[in-house]
Amino acid sequence: MIRTSKVWMLKNLFEGEPKLSDFELEEHELRDITDGELICEAEYLSVDPYMRVYVSRIPSIPATMIGTQVAKVIESKNPSYPVGSYIYGHFGWRSRTLVTALDDPKVHPIKPYPCPNLGTHPRSYALGCCGRVGNSAYFGLLELCKPQPGETVVISGAAGAVGCLVGQIAKIKGCKVIGIAGGIEKCNWLTNELGFDEAVDYKDEKFNENLSAVTLDGVDVYFDNVGGIISYEVMKRMNQFGRISICGSISSYNLDPSQVPKVPQINDFHRKILRMEGFLVNRWLGERWFEGIMQIKTWLDEGKIKYKETITEGFENMPQAFIDVLRGKNFGKAIVKV
Amino acid sequence: MIRTSKVWMLKNLFEGEPKLSDFELEEHELRDITDGELICEAEYLSVDPYMRVYVSRIPSIPATMIGTQVAKVIESKNPSYPVGSYIYGHFGWRSRTLVTALDDPKVHPIKPYPCPNLGTHPRSYALGCCGRVGNSAYFGLLELCKPQPGETVVISGAAGAVGCLVGQIAKIKGCKVIGIAGGIEKCNWLTNELGFDEAVDYKDEKFNENLSAVTLDGVDVYFDNVGGIISYEVMKRMNQFGRISICGSISSYNLDPSQVPKVPQINDFHRKILRMEGFLVNRWLGERWFEGIMQIKTWLDEGKIKYKETITEGFENMPQAFIDVLRGKNFGKAIVKV
Repeated sequence: MIRTSKVWMLKNLFEGEPKLSDFELEEHELRDITDGELICEAEYLSVDPYMRVYVSRIPSIPATMIGTQVAKVIESKNPSYPVGSYIYGHFGWRSRTLVTALDDPKVHPIKPYPCPNLGTHPRSYALGCCGRVGNSAYFGLLELCKPQPGETVVISGAAGAVGCLVGQIAKIKGCKVIGIAGGIEKCNWLTNELGFDEAVDYKDEKFNENLSAVTLDGVDVYFDNVGGIISYEVMKRMNQFGRISICGSISSYNLDPSQVPKVPQINDFHRKILRMEGFLVNRWLGERWFEGIMQIKTWLDEGKIKYKETITEGFENMPQAFIDVLRGKNFGKAIVKV
Repeated sequence: MIRTSKVWMLKNLFEGEPKLSDFELEEHELRDITDGELICEAEYLSVDPYMRVYVSRIPSIPATMIGTQVAKVIESKNPSYPVGSYIYGHFGWRSRTLVTALDDPKVHPIKPYPCPNLGTHPRSYALGCCGRVGNSAYFGLLELCKPQPGETVVISGAAGAVGCLVGQIAKIKGCKVIGIAGGIEKCNWLTNELGFDEAVDYKDEKFNENLSAVTLDGVDVYFDNVGGIISYEVMKRMNQFGRISICGSISSYNLDPSQVPKVPQINDFHRKILRMEGFLVNRWLGERWFEGIMQIKTWLDEGKIKYKETITEGFENMPQAFIDVLRGKNFGKAIVKV
């Protein structure tokens, strides 16, 4: 049986903000499968800020745009993935995928896995709170910062997919939680819905003043998704023995390296004994991966964590959904539903 | 017996570069000692960049200028410190000190200790390579950066007291060692005398180019004493999994906070999985303190480490010696000999 796949190809390396014209929709043909292989059909695809950066690793273009998806197995010669089951994988922006060489790390640097059983939660969560996003929050906060009860935790990009989870996990751990987000609507969501203690709108002209007002006791932990001047403002308020976890730097993703903003240097790292660590969530791939996912699922089940998705309908709208997430239009995790 | 002490008092909190007129030499009288107390006479005093920063912790001025010294016990009612023995302590810039309440951490946040037996090495080394300076290099490099054989280690302020030790320790550990220092004379000292693989003069207008030429394989470990634009240039060359140890930020010590230079932000901490940690050497006070000191003494004995002091004669010249160290006039450790 001949199957076709719609594929979003990256035509140009981005300059500044990605444009719709950087992408082109193609139709590819899939061959027949042999033993060990399968064909799957995307149900949900993820759009994330990190993609803006990681396209630079694509060796040549045009190439299939990178990304993860949850897909339904529609044809299979692999007993671990029967027809009708769901698979999670880094298959790129494609509607159907012929998955081969599942055990070859050269083909799959990050190995696909059966979509975890999330009970009553939507399968899309495997792309978010019960996947890379959840583990970025879980390990990036708990392993790198070890927040203690009563400490003040500040999160930038707090209304984003990772940030909103970080704040809720920090609340579970007994911390005072301050989110930084863009716009009053997001800030209200953080405090009214998610239980953040404070939220500060970085678009407000009184941002500095407002941040100072809620950090009178300084900052013990900073979970950073944005970089730039916001990070400078937080870092200069760090307390002694402060820990900083760098998950992303979205404020500069669309900038040419020469445009990266100059900020005053934080020159008291030694005096305050600060530690700052960047991470990629892949660091916890392997035996601990499902520890994070399942802990977050438990917290969801217990109502201790709330989770929100901004869902764009239609595979054809992936480029716009991606552009929107870089513009910060999403509340929580941005997902495309095929 | 009435004893007097010469004392350098800090009269003004520094604005910009410290000035001779910020200090005033006084003569103080010491009372008689009682049980457990002693009087000691300074033999060597230390002048260090950190003092520029730490005066801000003095609650009110005028006050005795802060600092460490090695002093000879000249009167004693404390059996641990017989007359003629030597004591190391944070006594400040004073020629004689009545030391009381040796066991009270409120009086002595950092407890004085008998000057370690350094064999044939001068006692002044207890203020340098066999004291805080040596331990800053030893623990700040080995504990925080864990340099591996074949890795590239870059050190700023490399001709300073700490930096010149860091480079030599990194060589002992089998690393490629690159020092950054000001002026051709210091650079030649690093490569010709101390065995650094490369030295780069930050005052050279081709600094960036020269740094690139010696870091073609990137930088795995950066030991930073200076901060500012030099640190930016090194940090942007970090390899994945790079480690950065922040010992000091001397480039900004004389600057008003509003003058701290703006530098482009390093925005790939997450992508490169970098870790940066500031430290104060007091962190290793306690059981490990003499591990570092004695290891460095052993390396000195074995000829694996060379050590240099810039000695100013005369207690009355302390302010000038301090100003000079902030101007980078010293090779190796700056010491005042009474």
